[in-house]
Amino acid sequence: MTAIGRRYNASFQQTMLRIKDPKVSVPFYERHFGMKLVHRYDFPQWKFSLYFLERPRDAAAAALPSPGTKASEAYLWSMTGTTLELTHNHGSEEDDSFSVWSGNCGSDLPAESPLFRAGVVRGFGHIAFNVEDVYAMSAALEAAGVAFQKRPDEGRMKGLAFCLDPDGYWIELVKREEGSQPRAWPAASRAASLHDAEP
Amino acid sequence: MTAIGRRYNASFQQTMLRIKDPKVSVPFYERHFGMKLVHRYDFPQWKFSLYFLERPRDAAAAALPSPGTKASEAYLWSMTGTTLELTHNHGSEEDDSFSVWSGNCGSDLPAESPLFRAGVVRGFGHIAFNVEDVYAMSAALEAAGVAFQKRPDEGRMKGLAFCLDPDGYWIELVKREEGSQPRAWPAASRAASLHDAEP
Repeated sequence: MTAIGRRYNASFQQTMLRIKDPKVSVPFYERHFGMKLVHRYDFPQWKFSLYFLERPRDAAAAALPSPGTKASEAYLWSMTGTTLELTHNHGSEEDDSFSVWSGNCGSDLPAESPLFRAGVVRGFGHIAFNVEDVYAMSAALEAAGVAFQKRPDEGRMKGLAFCLDPDGYWIELVKREEGSQPRAWPAASRAASLHDAEP
Repeated sequence: MTAIGRRYNASFQQTMLRIKDPKVSVPFYERHFGMKLVHRYDFPQWKFSLYFLERPRDAAAAALPSPGTKASEAYLWSMTGTTLELTHNHGSEEDDSFSVWSGNCGSDLPAESPLFRAGVVRGFGHIAFNVEDVYAMSAALEAAGVAFQKRPDEGRMKGLAFCLDPDGYWIELVKREEGSQPRAWPAASRAASLHDAEP
């Protein structure tokens, strides 16, 4: 018998995080992590909107359809890549009491841990990005006002960093394998991307 | 000034979930969602292990290096795709009180919601897979003993389903765009995958 996932050709398409304000979070991921809004849905009758961000191959990015169109919807549900889906429940952007749970505090930690918290357990931990230089990128992010949970030289695992997104979700930065570049990412377009204008 | 994400060539590489037992969760994602273990780390000194799963292109899957080798580590940190990272804190598999937090219960929901829970707020929601037939795959998963949060015809959004992984994380099933197939996924290898033996 064929395994179910292969029989129905399953592919990992999204990770969903609830956010407070898309006007803050979408530019954050576009500017700081090279992502691009590839589609959005608005459900005013249910008071929520969904924003899908991908890190497209540089050569493909310019050819992506405009978000919110039939073409971008078709792209979203036929892509091979994995998106970050940001869910905005309308009104949270004006709710001073709104917060999200990062997943990293809980009673399953030792009581002396600064992340110990009674009454909850941990679960989801973080998303991560491969980057060319964790130290330089961390310094650039911090200079741009991004908060850090762990700088590259802090903690027991040197060279890894965790910064915080606008809602406090943890984002890990891991060095891309030395000398490599993403497979199927043409050298020419990658080199060009280093000199692209800011989006 | 070039945006930081492009300057350091950031690419979305992982989503991390804590799990109770890798002997349960790794086969679950391999069998039911077409994923493959591409690398693992063991840190006995810190009592945790990490399992990285990818949905490789079918033609590439056979050529992947053995997990836990230098070659698989190099692959992991140079890949273009996005992995699911499963974190196992040693001992949880024998801890009857262990549980994880799915991210979908909280006091930010209306008090009459079955998912309302005082004292916590929501955050991470789910991961999702594109599949060829949500109804047929849901039926096959349910027949294989997988629990469902929402079957395709339940709730207000017909055609979408949410099943639960072994720890209770929500996994959404979304239909792949009609007539499409993952881009850059050769038709020949995709057709072959429909007749592959179970891994």
